[in-house]
Parts: sequence; structure tokens; C-alpha cells
Amino acid sequence: MISVCFIGFGNVNFNLCNALYENSEVSVIQIYNRNNIVLHQSLDDIALTTELSQILPADVYIIGVPDNAIATVSESLPFQDRLVVHTSGGVDMNTLSAANRRGVLYPLQTFSQGKVLDLKKVPVCIEAEEETDFQVLHQLGSILSENVVNINSTERAKLHLAAVFVNNFVNYLYGVSETILNEHNLDFELLKPLIYETAAKIENMSPSAAQTGPAKRKDTKTIEKHLHLLSESPYKTIYEILNNAIQDSYGKKL
Amino acid sequence: MISVCFIGFGNVNFNLCNALYENSEVSVIQIYNRNNIVLHQSLDDIALTTELSQILPADVYIIGVPDNAIATVSESLPFQDRLVVHTSGGVDMNTLSAANRRGVLYPLQTFSQGKVLDLKKVPVCIEAEEETDFQVLHQLGSILSENVVNINSTERAKLHLAAVFVNNFVNYLYGVSETILNEHNLDFELLKPLIYETAAKIENMSPSAAQTGPAKRKDTKTIEKHLHLLSESPYKTIYEILNNAIQDSYGKKL
Repeated sequence: MISVCFIGFGNVNFNLCNALYENSEVSVIQIYNRNNIVLHQSLDDIALTTELSQILPADVYIIGVPDNAIATVSESLPFQDRLVVHTSGGVDMNTLSAANRRGVLYPLQTFSQGKVLDLKKVPVCIEAEEETDFQVLHQLGSILSENVVNINSTERAKLHLAAVFVNNFVNYLYGVSETILNEHNLDFELLKPLIYETAAKIENMSPSAAQTGPAKRKDTKTIEKHLHLLSESPYKTIYEILNNAIQDSYGKKL
Repeated sequence: MISVCFIGFGNVNFNLCNALYENSEVSVIQIYNRNNIVLHQSLDDIALTTELSQILPADVYIIGVPDNAIATVSESLPFQDRLVVHTSGGVDMNTLSAANRRGVLYPLQTFSQGKVLDLKKVPVCIEAEEETDFQVLHQLGSILSENVVNINSTERAKLHLAAVFVNNFVNYLYGVSETILNEHNLDFELLKPLIYETAAKIENMSPSAAQTGPAKRKDTKTIEKHLHLLSESPYKTIYEILNNAIQDSYGKKL
């Protein structure tokens, strides 16, 4: 039985807590959050505290706070030599205070407020300073997911960079499309099956094999038409940069 | 009963043919393709021809050829005053030869070779010069999909532009991520649940509400780390442009 205490209770820790709470190998003994929170009924027998001094002994402390608060929060913990992990893709393990044994438990997924995701297929990236802690994190990761991977901080930084492209930047392009359609009184709903299939397509095909469109086929007539439509738009530069990148990329491969 | 003849048999017409073939309201009477094709067993009683002069009379001719060939192919049809439609998002209806009655049947989706998609949720955008032809296309569209929409060529150009952002450009970003991971011996498979959820997330949330990441929260430390990782990379400019666009966009909204 692994006893777990959550430090901070944003979207990531909410999801981890949901996934671990009913498992017989884990005991979620407490949630610390700086501000008062109200737990969903299914979790409401977990002890809560807003006082660092009231944090209970546990096998693992899982910090789920904004990246820029991880160092401060870990330094403020009033105990030593326990296993303290963070859940962030973009933060080095050594950002955690050295007063405790350090580790990372990073579920490579995007979480939304109040939405409980199935984590079974989500890669859980783990890292620890000590082998025994690594084993504990591996056990915890295996309860969460079928895909537990050993990723060190250097690798995780690259993984996080790549994740920014497929998550943050891709979502931004969804927003660009929505804005273009709204400006012309067209419904963004029309694009949702395309958005879904674009993601589904690469399940069994590499993105380079899946690439289509005017840029790839160097269809200058369509590209000019698009640039004309965007002549007054702040999105023209983005179109040009991505269009040219695709042309260059497939030009080289031909 | 609507009789249909396909002109060209790439991914789009292959999918339309599969969806229409077994419907009792439609008779797929022939496929014209410039080169010989071999049909899947399930379709192999459809007449084939490689000769324009052998094309049979039909209620609707559906042209599914590359955008830059639509005009030429439509001009080469050896008949007049029949309903001839193309299936392209990026091409004006009037690109079709005026010798026949013109229309468009544009399924707003990305199609892959040999992959049969369920079109029921896919918007089928229709346009016609004449009301009676519009009715025929509406009937055909309704057999294909629950979502048939009346979209003229001007609107379709904007829809196609928006589709380029969420399909071609998004897929390119998937490829960028794959390249970054491959360069560091990390497995692109790790990102697939994130890619899938990024698309799924906007099902019930606008992209602007779904936006997260270092750019949105102006996390300069992480952004600098990413730019450092990309210092020798051709993708640095794309990162900067998209990162700055997100910062500007959310800066304004705050």
C-alpha cells in the first residue's frame, strides 16, 4: 500500500487523485491546497488541509502547482527526506528542494477543469533520484496507466517542447480557424469532423505521409487566393511561414 | 433514383462511391478514370471506362480530380446540359465548363488512400446554379451525411482556408514534433494520446478557452528553454511566430 498526499489540486492532481483514489494498492490520505477547495462527493472523505504544518506523513507527495511555484512550494514543506515529486513536463527534477528525495510523475496529457480523463493509454513519465523511489513511482504509474516510461529531465524538456507544438500551437491554429470562420459568419462546428480525423489519421500513418494540401502540392493558385483572403489579417504571416515550411520540407524530400 | 457517374477515382470519389453504392435511392452506373483501376470486390460490378467517349448518361457526374485538372476535365466531357459537379473545397463552381449545368458537392473531410470513412457527421457542402439541381445534390448529400449545408463558392473559399489551418498546418506541426522527438531518440507514439485529446477537447470548449501552455501564461523561463533547445533548428522561427501570436492574442484579451 502506497500512501499519497497531493500538494495543490489543479486539473492534473484532480485527475491523478480520481485515478488513484479507488485503487486498493493506494491510499490517498490527504490533499493540501493553499485555498479551501470543495471536493466532489466521490472524493469527499479525503482529508483536506490549507496548512503546511498539518501535512500528514505519506510515502509520496505529489506537487501539482503552476511551474513557477514548484520550487517555492517544495521548499516550504515542513519535513525532510521524504519522496516529493512534481507533475510538470517543463520543469527539471532538480527544481524541487533538495531537502527531500526528488522525483517526477508527469502524465503526458492535457487536462481540463472538472473533466476526468481515462489515463490508461496516457504515457506516465517517471524519474527519481533513488532506485527505491523509482520503484514506488513505477508502481504508482502502473496503477494509472499501461504506459509508464522512464524519462529523465533532459529528455522530458524535449518531450515537453514537442508537446507544445502538438497541443498549444495546434490548439492556437484551431482558434485561428474559428476566428476566420466567425468573421465570415460561418460555423466552426463545420470543421470539427476534419479536426478529429486529422488527429485520428496519424494513428497509423506518419504525419509526413499524411500531409496534403496546397502547400505540399505547390498549388500556387490556391495559395495566392488564400493570401489574398488574408491580406488584411493578422494571420497572414502564420500562413506564409507554415506554407513555406511545408513547401521547403516537401521540396527537399522530392 | 439518382444515377451517378464518377469522373476520376481518387480518395474523395472512392469514399463517396462507397457511401452511395449500396443505397437504394442511388445507382452508381459508371466510373470513368483516365488510367485503369482495379475496384475492391465490394464495388466490382460497377462499369469502368478509361474513354471519355464511353461515358454513360447519368443524372449527376461527380468530378474527383486534382484541383488544377477540374477545368480541363470538365471541358473535355463529350456532352452538354447535364449536371456536373466537383468535390473540391478550394475551387470556384464556375471553374467548371459552362457547357454543362454546374454544381459542387464538397465533403469537408480529409481522406486517405484505401480508408473508408463514415461520412454521417461530415458536412457535405453543396452549391448549384439551378434550383432543381440543388435539390438533387441535397438529396444526394442527405444520403451521405446528416449535415448537408448550402455553401456558395465565396463562402467555400473561406471554409477551405480555415480547413488548411486545422488540417494541413496542424498535420505539419505533428510532423515537426515527430522530427524533434526522432532527433532525440524519443518515440512519437508518446504524443498520440495528447494529440487525440487536444482535438477532442474542443468538442465542447472553444479553442480560446482550451488554450494552455507557456505562451499563454507568458512563462518566459520555459519559452527561453525551448528557444535554446531550438537554437540550431529550422523550427525556431515557427516556434517564435506561434508563441508570439499566442502571447499577443491573450495579452489583448486580458
